[in-house]
Amino acid sequence: MEVTQTVPEKYTTHRVTGEKGKADRIAFPETETEIAEYLLQAAEAQQPIITVGASTGLTGATFPQNGEWLLSLANYRKILALDEETLTLQVQAGVTLAEIQAYLASTAYFYAPDPGSKQATIGGTAATNAGGMRAVKYGVTRENIRSMVVFLADGRKLTVGSLNNKDSSGYDLKDLFIGSEGTLGVITELGLKLRPKPAVTVSVLIGFEHLDDLAPVVYQILGSSLQPAALEFFDREAIQYAEKFLKEAFLAIKGECFLLITLDGPDEESLTQQLEQMSEASESWKKQSFRSLTNEESLRIWRLRGAIGAGIEDVTQQEPLDIVVPINKITATIKRLRVVCLQSNLRAVFFGHAGDGNIHICLLREGLVQAEWEKRLDVVLHQIYQEVAKRGGLPSAEHGIGLLKKPYFREAIDPVKLQVMQQIKQTLDPQNRLNPGKIFD
Amino acid sequence: MEVTQTVPEKYTTHRVTGEKGKADRIAFPETETEIAEYLLQAAEAQQPIITVGASTGLTGATFPQNGEWLLSLANYRKILALDEETLTLQVQAGVTLAEIQAYLASTAYFYAPDPGSKQATIGGTAATNAGGMRAVKYGVTRENIRSMVVFLADGRKLTVGSLNNKDSSGYDLKDLFIGSEGTLGVITELGLKLRPKPAVTVSVLIGFEHLDDLAPVVYQILGSSLQPAALEFFDREAIQYAEKFLKEAFLAIKGECFLLITLDGPDEESLTQQLEQMSEASESWKKQSFRSLTNEESLRIWRLRGAIGAGIEDVTQQEPLDIVVPINKITATIKRLRVVCLQSNLRAVFFGHAGDGNIHICLLREGLVQAEWEKRLDVVLHQIYQEVAKRGGLPSAEHGIGLLKKPYFREAIDPVKLQVMQQIKQTLDPQNRLNPGKIFD
Repeated sequence: MEVTQTVPEKYTTHRVTGEKGKADRIAFPETETEIAEYLLQAAEAQQPIITVGASTGLTGATFPQNGEWLLSLANYRKILALDEETLTLQVQAGVTLAEIQAYLASTAYFYAPDPGSKQATIGGTAATNAGGMRAVKYGVTRENIRSMVVFLADGRKLTVGSLNNKDSSGYDLKDLFIGSEGTLGVITELGLKLRPKPAVTVSVLIGFEHLDDLAPVVYQILGSSLQPAALEFFDREAIQYAEKFLKEAFLAIKGECFLLITLDGPDEESLTQQLEQMSEASESWKKQSFRSLTNEESLRIWRLRGAIGAGIEDVTQQEPLDIVVPINKITATIKRLRVVCLQSNLRAVFFGHAGDGNIHICLLREGLVQAEWEKRLDVVLHQIYQEVAKRGGLPSAEHGIGLLKKPYFREAIDPVKLQVMQQIKQTLDPQNRLNPGKIFD
Repeated sequence: MEVTQTVPEKYTTHRVTGEKGKADRIAFPETETEIAEYLLQAAEAQQPIITVGASTGLTGATFPQNGEWLLSLANYRKILALDEETLTLQVQAGVTLAEIQAYLASTAYFYAPDPGSKQATIGGTAATNAGGMRAVKYGVTRENIRSMVVFLADGRKLTVGSLNNKDSSGYDLKDLFIGSEGTLGVITELGLKLRPKPAVTVSVLIGFEHLDDLAPVVYQILGSSLQPAALEFFDREAIQYAEKFLKEAFLAIKGECFLLITLDGPDEESLTQQLEQMSEASESWKKQSFRSLTNEESLRIWRLRGAIGAGIEDVTQQEPLDIVVPINKITATIKRLRVVCLQSNLRAVFFGHAGDGNIHICLLREGLVQAEWEKRLDVVLHQIYQEVAKRGGLPSAEHGIGLLKKPYFREAIDPVKLQVMQQIKQTLDPQNRLNPGKIFD
């Protein structure tokens, strides 16, 4: 097993703040025996362990602050088996989403979760319960993982979940480890749920003058028999960052804010039918435009939608938020948060997954000096998370809590719930050695 | 709050074995304050608590063995609110499935889980993570509960889950309590996920000569774009119990074993299309008959399917199993288990949810004297659960472990996994007062 005290900068640099951290060593195990061995060495040396993936996370969840030992699964990245009978892909945790997508390209199946970064490792997406564009129809990472091999802090290994489609046989441990951000165990292997690829897809772009006109359309679609595979919203300002970054133009189409909807189905007929249904329903909508996109347009608009974050980061440092509210609270939340940002003198771009109530807010540093940026950020974040909590929302829909959201999470969460989480952490990792100080203290 | 030491027989009689148990008192709280109060009284008196629902469970999970205090939610059964924007029905845990179905009948929505007993309370279905007929398309209870109010053994109250469609904000506690059979907390209120009712449904009955001919059809359907709302299998023998019990005749149709498939959709057109697709695919199947049922036939066949268990219980005591295996193991498992039952001199009826790999086995007592019945049962159960485990299956798909399956569960489960479950139980209920001795010791 490769172990080195020269830890690559990628792992010691905070992806969002740029801060430099400190890790005492990093190991790249290639077998389960080596993983267990490294965990036992750490236990003996009473050293904390941070499992690292591709370092694409947006909350500092794998950022080493205190000389922790890193456990990288970069050399634990085999695609193990495709089981076409149970529709399961067995993979090691270091495989990236891009690799999984490439592997499945020549098959009849797909893995549904589609988070922003395709360079993320599958293990990392399980640790954060990553979401993405297709969650509105196919669920988040949690719903698409059948089983996982997990190592506990003391080196004990267990398999959680199974290839069975139903399970009332004891406590659900699988879902406890998913989204626990490396604080309860090391996820080393996963059984991914595959689905038959939809044969056809089409995207529709709908333009609105006001957010108030957009929201009722979202509720109506979700309450209908239509099952969009994606239901995204953004405004002109957001898309302009992507246009500049990609040097590609948006459509010449009326509207200030937009819904981008993808429908999928087994054949042209079913798609035509869904489109007709949507078009009929749209007659009562207060929209400015409604356009079923050609294949070229669809690819372009989706490229632009996917590049909003990168477009923003290209021109300024930003703080990326991924709040979520019950879907009937989207409009009220965005309107209120726009005011909050304005009052704090921070520019912000809003976009996100309307079908999930998941709003991305990019707070822009622009010309601010460090101290002023941090000051304004702290004020506005407290307010934002309070407003979200007031509406029954949560601080994180898909990025996780990590380090960056920890203080706000602590304020927003019911203290009893936090106690129970801490009790579970304490019992599974009594020496607090797995990714200590992340999510909560 | 009504508290009495005269505990109704319903709660002290084992639903499966008929055994008589002993409970020292039962309370029927009507408010959260009363629930907390009773829990604190029990804590003070160091008395164990069993939360009871409608006592329809099939594993003795609420059976009182040692004078436990019972907490009934029979008077905590209000339907609180229908939220059409987030498609959520808020209910108290004592509401029955039948009451929920009746309430929703006049709305445009339905609650998908459909376990056998409609008299089960919704809280009970959450505690066992009940499954049912429609799980193949809509998931089990777990996937259809958004949020729950839970009381811990020490009276602390917390809300797990939320109305948000995505959540990466700390550990997933909701799924830990679902399926924990009252051993971790008392579930008192639930936010249920609703869906728009499909406008049309049709059922298809397919007859096969051998089980070997049936299995490939199941895999092919699940791997296709068809999304059946139900995918059940049974043989002639199973259905004959229901025919006698209901005094209704099955169809005059060829076949020894059958697949009963329900398709649903938003309109006739989509249904016709699905039927055509299935009919085309069926040309390559080794079937003896294929019949799209009229509405009357469909209702009748579904009534018969639903009455298999009751039909068996009408003529003999039985031990009802609900094993689950990965779907590609169904045939091999059933064939092997038929041999096992034969060798143990126990007659058994097999049927179940083919789309989930969930096989119901009814072991029949018939004329056996108690001692002989218990002896043969013990031998055969050990063998059955070993064979299931060998194939990657689980002892319970939807009934839970309770008391009856505890010894077999202990044999089948990975010891590390059991340790982790016990650690969690220990930390959340350190005095072991919530439904002690159920699932595991």
